[in-house]
Amino acid sequence: MKLNCDLGESYGSWTMGMDSEVMPFIDMANIACGFHAGDADVMHKTLMLAKRHQVQIGAHPSYPDRQGFGRRSMNCSAAELINLLHYQIAALDGMAQIHGMQLCYVKPHGALYNDMMRDPAILATVFTAIASYHKPLALMLLATAKQQQHQQQAQAEGIDLLFEAFADRRYTNEGLLMPRSKAGAVLNEAEVLQQVKLLVSDAVVITESGQRLPLQADTLCVHGDNEAAIAQVQSIQQVLQAS
Amino acid sequence: MKLNCDLGESYGSWTMGMDSEVMPFIDMANIACGFHAGDADVMHKTLMLAKRHQVQIGAHPSYPDRQGFGRRSMNCSAAELINLLHYQIAALDGMAQIHGMQLCYVKPHGALYNDMMRDPAILATVFTAIASYHKPLALMLLATAKQQQHQQQAQAEGIDLLFEAFADRRYTNEGLLMPRSKAGAVLNEAEVLQQVKLLVSDAVVITESGQRLPLQADTLCVHGDNEAAIAQVQSIQQVLQAS
Amino acid sequence: MKLNCDLGESYGSWTMGMDSEVMPFIDMANIACGFHAGDADVMHKTLMLAKRHQVQIGAHPSYPDRQGFGRRSMNCSAAELINLLHYQIAALDGMAQIHGMQLCYVKPHGALYNDMMRDPAILATVFTAIASYHKPLALMLLATAKQQQHQQQAQAEGIDLLFEAFADRRYTNEGLLMPRSKAGAVLNEAEVLQQVKLLVSDAVVITESGQRLPLQADTLCVHGDNEAAIAQVQSIQQVLQAS
Amino acid sequence: MKLNCDLGESYGSWTMGMDSEVMPFIDMANIACGFHAGDADVMHKTLMLAKRHQVQIGAHPSYPDRQGFGRRSMNCSAAELINLLHYQIAALDGMAQIHGMQLCYVKPHGALYNDMMRDPAILATVFTAIASYHKPLALMLLATAKQQQHQQQAQAEGIDLLFEAFADRRYTNEGLLMPRSKAGAVLNEAEVLQQVKLLVSDAVVITESGQRLPLQADTLCVHGDNEAAIAQVQSIQQVLQAS
Repeated sequence: MKLNCDLGESYGSWTMGMDSEVMPFIDMANIACGFHAGDADVMHKTLMLAKRHQVQIGAHPSYPDRQGFGRRSMNCSAAELINLLHYQIAALDGMAQIHGMQLCYVKPHGALYNDMMRDPAILATVFTAIASYHKPLALMLLATAKQQQHQQQAQAEGIDLLFEAFADRRYTNEGLLMPRSKAGAVLNEAEVLQQVKLLVSDAVVITESGQRLPLQADTLCVHGDNEAAIAQVQSIQQVLQAS
Repeated sequence: MKLNCDLGESYGSWTMGMDSEVMPFIDMANIACGFHAGDADVMHKTLMLAKRHQVQIGAHPSYPDRQGFGRRSMNCSAAELINLLHYQIAALDGMAQIHGMQLCYVKPHGALYNDMMRDPAILATVFTAIASYHKPLALMLLATAKQQQHQQQAQAEGIDLLFEAFADRRYTNEGLLMPRSKAGAVLNEAEVLQQVKLLVSDAVVITESGQRLPLQADTLCVHGDNEAAIAQVQSIQQVLQAS
Repeated sequence: MKLNCDLGESYGSWTMGMDSEVMPFIDMANIACGFHAGDADVMHKTLMLAKRHQVQIGAHPSYPDRQGFGRRSMNCSAAELINLLHYQIAALDGMAQIHGMQLCYVKPHGALYNDMMRDPAILATVFTAIASYHKPLALMLLATAKQQQHQQQAQAEGIDLLFEAFADRRYTNEGLLMPRSKAGAVLNEAEVLQQVKLLVSDAVVITESGQRLPLQADTLCVHGDNEAAIAQVQSIQQVLQAS
Repeated sequence: MKLNCDLGESYGSWTMGMDSEVMPFIDMANIACGFHAGDADVMHKTLMLAKRHQVQIGAHPSYPDRQGFGRRSMNCSAAELINLLHYQIAALDGMAQIHGMQLCYVKPHGALYNDMMRDPAILATVFTAIASYHKPLALMLLATAKQQQHQQQAQAEGIDLLFEAFADRRYTNEGLLMPRSKAGAVLNEAEVLQQVKLLVSDAVVITESGQRLPLQADTLCVHGDNEAAIAQVQSIQQVLQAS
């Protein structure tokens, strides 16, 4: 079970995230590509950091909305979405190759990620964008109750999927994340470690109504926003190593 | 003697240039990469157009100044300049590969082009950016009285140069372009064809003071802004084919 | 019946619209404020043009999406929407006052206009933004079957409304515009003039199903995109002057 | 002697500066207007904070370079500079008036501030921009050895000047700030308080070569970047209250 984390989300003179502190503990870095966060300087720096710690790299593309940090749904056409995914993926891919690094996967960001999980037409467009890229890239998406169906669709397109689960979020019965705005949506420290253990041992999560929902996760999404988050990543890593 | 032209300089809903009309007559398309002009949709469309007409493609990167169309000099550090060149080149390079096309060269745009020709430190930074890219790309720059020196510097960096001359601009004795603001800076139609003929037959231009200045040009820069420009490209092409 | 037109939609080096040509024939200029189109230079130039022709000026604010020309719906919060409306209105208002001009009204642009007509919550937020501005500004919106209801809501907020009708678009039975993608959505020249005459004489439009729908329009929206559009504005002006 | 501080330099999801912590200790807030930092949401929030603490507000406009935080010199024409100053000033001015606040002054940011102090033509353009605004605004600039000359120029334009001195920076003999890159350019805590005392008691600074340079400062520029900076502002405030 690998740990993935959104990184490279600083911009210009603004810093976001403790990238240097979290990088040693993760396996996969989802690197912003300049549309919601990141810029050429930040991308270069983040790539160098990932290289030093031998962390796998993925593109973390977004709707074109820097002021809204890619968190506002935007009504893009399929053609627009494919082109903006290709642009962002290509920019990071080329910058990585300059340093002998290989881009491995794509994890859409923010509203685009949510829209893709909610709307099959948008997911299909993301599949098309990745399938039409000139080198094989996996798509990282949420492990939900529909993961078998997603797997079949991806196979038909010739794409590998990386299913991620969230260590720190409570799940609905559909295997979606409870909105952060709802009470109990974010797990406390003990619950986080419990959820990680269950995902590893039984491949299930306990949903909001107490049901056991089977979820096959390839990777856990963790955060590097602040010192508490870094400490949590270390705790999760210990649980994983012990299991 | 190949014809090159700046293309893909539309943006969003704004159209600039008669790309479809000029593409059939040129050999090399300098494609904007999103910083001064162009966006993912425009780049895709421009690549498709170049592919249809089997035109060589180059990246046309710029300072990050869309409102100023990359025409305002910006005081970027060497590291910033290298990163923003890599980002733009990589974005176009990847989008080209999606369609089985190969990026061949880089021609900096606007103020960056002028700064590079004026300031040896900026030219050296551009050399470094191109030399450090993970695949060989030529640099297109102005053929001036210093072209031998530029050639030597490029060889030391392992970069190929493509020297361009301007069909429609009068030259100073240093082999620079007279500023457009000066009377006589832009040649009339007969002068344009005369300059092209001399460049092809004798590898010289007649400067503002009437001197014959030797210039070895690999390519001529032409324009596709309007119908008169397209007609001029066709006239130049005829001169070249006849010579 | 006044004529209003969207203007100032050039950006940087890109030109859009024949502003100089259409300005003499209109009464109200909806001026872009820099978020979907326009910039400080374009706004200055457009204000000067409106002043010369003694045309009333309104702000034409948008979602923050220049590449999409404000045509993509964006999921902004009410607070975000109010702030971005205030910012854009204030920028144009101040630039107008520099030249002794008074901003009179606000007409939201593109997707924001459509969202406001479709979603009562967004319309209420636009009302709040305009009502909280420190000087009285009217809101220009579409005259629909709901115009009485809109009038009452506006009165409760203390805002004046300017209802606009479209000369060149066919209406649904609800008094909305048929989507441009549908056949017959855009009227031909004879139909345009017929629709204008009926609006002026009877305050009705003939809908797609042939019904007479009452619409009280204060202003007609016309276009200055190209020479045919300019000619149409002149024809409409003649119809209005004759009626 | 008033304390002024650059504020409102967060952007979207990125936070910069401890605005809430420093606002209680300052007299004048230089508020970013969206070109190098700040956006409509940040501006609104910063205005509310200034209102709560009854702090005077000024516009802090910049070259249009968010990624470079307005720190890169850009070669704008005089007309461009005037328009972009008007746009930014007007946006903040209008947003302030919504809340019954009055904009008092303008302090250009970053590279624009430095360019204005270095190049008389750019200073003259800034004078023109402020003089042509439709309400009186003071210009805040650096108190240097040329302050009498600047005062005369401003009077000729009908503009009030606010001269600022820096508490924490060492001065050259010309009354300019030593570049931060030079050793000794940034004063230590004891030196800061000593410089403040001398400015208040004798209206002089001790320059890098040990000379006493007369400087009439209306205001001191302080910083709210981090806790050490906040503590320094409090120490300076105590020195001022004791003098």
